[in-house]
Amino acid sequence: MSVTNIHEDPDALIRSDDPEHPANLICELCRDFYKLGWVTGTGGGISIRHGDHVYLAPSGVQKERIHPSHIFVLPFQQTAVPKPGSKRDFLRIPSQKGLKESACTPLFWNAFTMRDARACIHTHSQHAVMLTLLHPADAQGNATFRISHQEMIKGIRIGGTGKTLSYLDTLEIPIIENTPDEEDLTEGMSRAMERYPDAGAVLVRRHGVYVWGGSWEQAKTQAECLDYLFEIAVKMRLAGMPLVGGDAAA
Amino acid sequence: MSVTNIHEDPDALIRSDDPEHPANLICELCRDFYKLGWVTGTGGGISIRHGDHVYLAPSGVQKERIHPSHIFVLPFQQTAVPKPGSKRDFLRIPSQKGLKESACTPLFWNAFTMRDARACIHTHSQHAVMLTLLHPADAQGNATFRISHQEMIKGIRIGGTGKTLSYLDTLEIPIIENTPDEEDLTEGMSRAMERYPDAGAVLVRRHGVYVWGGSWEQAKTQAECLDYLFEIAVKMRLAGMPLVGGDAAA
Amino acid sequence: MSVTNIHEDPDALIRSDDPEHPANLICELCRDFYKLGWVTGTGGGISIRHGDHVYLAPSGVQKERIHPSHIFVLPFQQTAVPKPGSKRDFLRIPSQKGLKESACTPLFWNAFTMRDARACIHTHSQHAVMLTLLHPADAQGNATFRISHQEMIKGIRIGGTGKTLSYLDTLEIPIIENTPDEEDLTEGMSRAMERYPDAGAVLVRRHGVYVWGGSWEQAKTQAECLDYLFEIAVKMRLAGMPLVGGDAAA
Amino acid sequence: MSVTNIHEDPDALIRSDDPEHPANLICELCRDFYKLGWVTGTGGGISIRHGDHVYLAPSGVQKERIHPSHIFVLPFQQTAVPKPGSKRDFLRIPSQKGLKESACTPLFWNAFTMRDARACIHTHSQHAVMLTLLHPADAQGNATFRISHQEMIKGIRIGGTGKTLSYLDTLEIPIIENTPDEEDLTEGMSRAMERYPDAGAVLVRRHGVYVWGGSWEQAKTQAECLDYLFEIAVKMRLAGMPLVGGDAAA
Repeated sequence: MSVTNIHEDPDALIRSDDPEHPANLICELCRDFYKLGWVTGTGGGISIRHGDHVYLAPSGVQKERIHPSHIFVLPFQQTAVPKPGSKRDFLRIPSQKGLKESACTPLFWNAFTMRDARACIHTHSQHAVMLTLLHPADAQGNATFRISHQEMIKGIRIGGTGKTLSYLDTLEIPIIENTPDEEDLTEGMSRAMERYPDAGAVLVRRHGVYVWGGSWEQAKTQAECLDYLFEIAVKMRLAGMPLVGGDAAA
Repeated sequence: MSVTNIHEDPDALIRSDDPEHPANLICELCRDFYKLGWVTGTGGGISIRHGDHVYLAPSGVQKERIHPSHIFVLPFQQTAVPKPGSKRDFLRIPSQKGLKESACTPLFWNAFTMRDARACIHTHSQHAVMLTLLHPADAQGNATFRISHQEMIKGIRIGGTGKTLSYLDTLEIPIIENTPDEEDLTEGMSRAMERYPDAGAVLVRRHGVYVWGGSWEQAKTQAECLDYLFEIAVKMRLAGMPLVGGDAAA
Repeated sequence: MSVTNIHEDPDALIRSDDPEHPANLICELCRDFYKLGWVTGTGGGISIRHGDHVYLAPSGVQKERIHPSHIFVLPFQQTAVPKPGSKRDFLRIPSQKGLKESACTPLFWNAFTMRDARACIHTHSQHAVMLTLLHPADAQGNATFRISHQEMIKGIRIGGTGKTLSYLDTLEIPIIENTPDEEDLTEGMSRAMERYPDAGAVLVRRHGVYVWGGSWEQAKTQAECLDYLFEIAVKMRLAGMPLVGGDAAA
Repeated sequence: MSVTNIHEDPDALIRSDDPEHPANLICELCRDFYKLGWVTGTGGGISIRHGDHVYLAPSGVQKERIHPSHIFVLPFQQTAVPKPGSKRDFLRIPSQKGLKESACTPLFWNAFTMRDARACIHTHSQHAVMLTLLHPADAQGNATFRISHQEMIKGIRIGGTGKTLSYLDTLEIPIIENTPDEEDLTEGMSRAMERYPDAGAVLVRRHGVYVWGGSWEQAKTQAECLDYLFEIAVKMRLAGMPLVGGDAAA
């Protein structure tokens, strides 16, 4: 499909019979994520980078009911993070009225540019939020979720796109503070990614998590492993068990 | 469709191939709400106001198994709240025997007349009920659920139909006392809506919640955001965490 | 369909295109109950009495995978409780090898004969079992679950087949002790039903619950209301809240 | 189907219209197990032994999305446990790139050779993991989960393939320590199976459980009964209730 064609018919970018085409996948995965409680009430979503194109769900809509025709497409440029609101650079904008670009766009871009990720998932999972509440920031304003000795750690990749962790590794995920506007998280997320180059996700206090991977499959399976670890960590903490060390607990 | 047609063939009001027609939507949404645990055992439901017509599910039936032919249609009149039991004013009554108008009708009317809502959802969610149990009434008989510093607050609109709250706002939802007969809640709900003009919902102690919006999508996504907040608030309270202030907790 | 036909072709009893035919309904409802966690691992089920015929799922099979051809049919006789194991009286026995009649048969019969029920549901719901664990027997060996001031109480009928309770009523469900063999519960269940003529269900300690109704819809919606009340009662008790009295709690 | 045919066309081993053919069943059951939270994030799975053939899902893929063409087939030999990585002995290897044999293979083999099992399920259920955390090893490094007086115990078979337990029996499941590499669990699992000849499963600390049966139906229903017992045991322990003895608790 040539660039010329796309400019003449931008909908060619989102029209495909292939269920694994990003425009179709985003809709299917959002329905799945809704059942998991990750994108309830319009929150959360997934962005997929496919070659030079980035596919994005719209903002503020029911994620379990989106249709490929609702998908935005942006060009992927390593150096230019798109500012939300500026529609200048879109390759494809939905014709349906009232659909807005996701405010998460620059956050997804962090994963694409800093980790060469091909997909980034944002969930509002209650397990993620409860976990951040159990990890208050220290005097320097820093907080980190750490857990060890859990089989599911083996499903997480170093930096999200590297090789998988071993059972003997301690998983570390930074927790950043939330901001009133989602795009203002961009700076905090990129700083956390610099400080924690091995982390495959960033937790946002009282908000949720951003998880990425070298493919949509990697992003999804890591989001599942992490959500499992968030959930069991909350249960363990509420039962008085240490998260790190593998000690017997009762 | 002319008024003459409706009087000659009231079923024209509920017969449509459009999945977004209120008679079809109510059935689909009730199936979805059943999966969420909101309308188990015949409780709860949704009413949609479409122009001058109000669509209502029947009372006391399995909400996940209703059919468009079971739907009641009332004329919407700003000043005349229909009394349950009076069938005089119906535009369409199901022909199937034993179906009764919902006792929630005057409560849905509160949302339609006082907030210009187009849809009102009533759930028996356990999260809502547990939350009311954690908020006993004060000496004056008043109780209010308050929560702040949660991303999901941004999904709630001022008064249910206004602009969305900011992350810096504290969400306030009044809790009214339950009454033996559902229609007797009408007065308490309207008083609470007068006292809390910004609230997009009313909780009913040991019973559930009424949530509305300027469209069915708004009502549904706000019901989801609120149910999420009720659930996490119960978890936070049981873990000894304050709901307001955004302080670190452990 | 004449008796002669049934004897010539017993499968006529379970062959129907009507989704509400008992043989079809039992399969559909068992799939639904599986999703609710009521009949996991072959436990639990539903029996429907339709005129002079009683339809029963087989014992010890995956309840979410049964087919109408697996259904047993017994004649309903007010005075003759069928003993499990005696196949003499069956109107229809599945031809598939290895299918056994449910050991719950005489317990379902209690509901059919003592309350004129048309359907009886048996669940292994964890909410029911946890609730029995929170209600130890007194010195006389008796235990009763009591709850008041819950909207969902209004979904329960007096004796399971009478009129519905009011919000002002206290719900009472007897808890009987479990026995190694399910059919040995028959006597304990019938004694509890005599002592509690208004109860619409019997809880079995460390086992589950039997719920019935004047129709399958009544049995199912009451099973849902009760399971909701069992669940919230467990949460309330673990949070230190009283189940009866409607007092404020924190 | 002759051996000659299989060698000429190994895909004949996984191609069937019969939904109960092992290659089809494994895919269907993995989708079901995903909904139960047992195989989230690529973890867990099921292996079925059918005559002289053992069917295995691939490692490290989304278990809810596998297709019969992804299935590995090994010959079943009582004496030769296949080493992971050695592909010499496969009867059928998926042609799709990147699919690896499950590291659980020698663990499934334990069930096939030591108990004559026909199916073995491995789950990462959080109930299993939480239960192991509540049962620290003793000074000799041993730990055992014991529970009695639960109706669901009657769904478990002696040794997984024998006759079912009675309500009066105490269920015992050994808990072995996890190892960094899954195949290194083989030795610990077989030792535990020797020490506990009546146990129908082996729990792995901070990891999950292995359950087997004389058929896939037995393996699945026992996995469900055990997961139910793990879940209620965690709830009981956190509520301060003893798991063994059947005493009243509050």
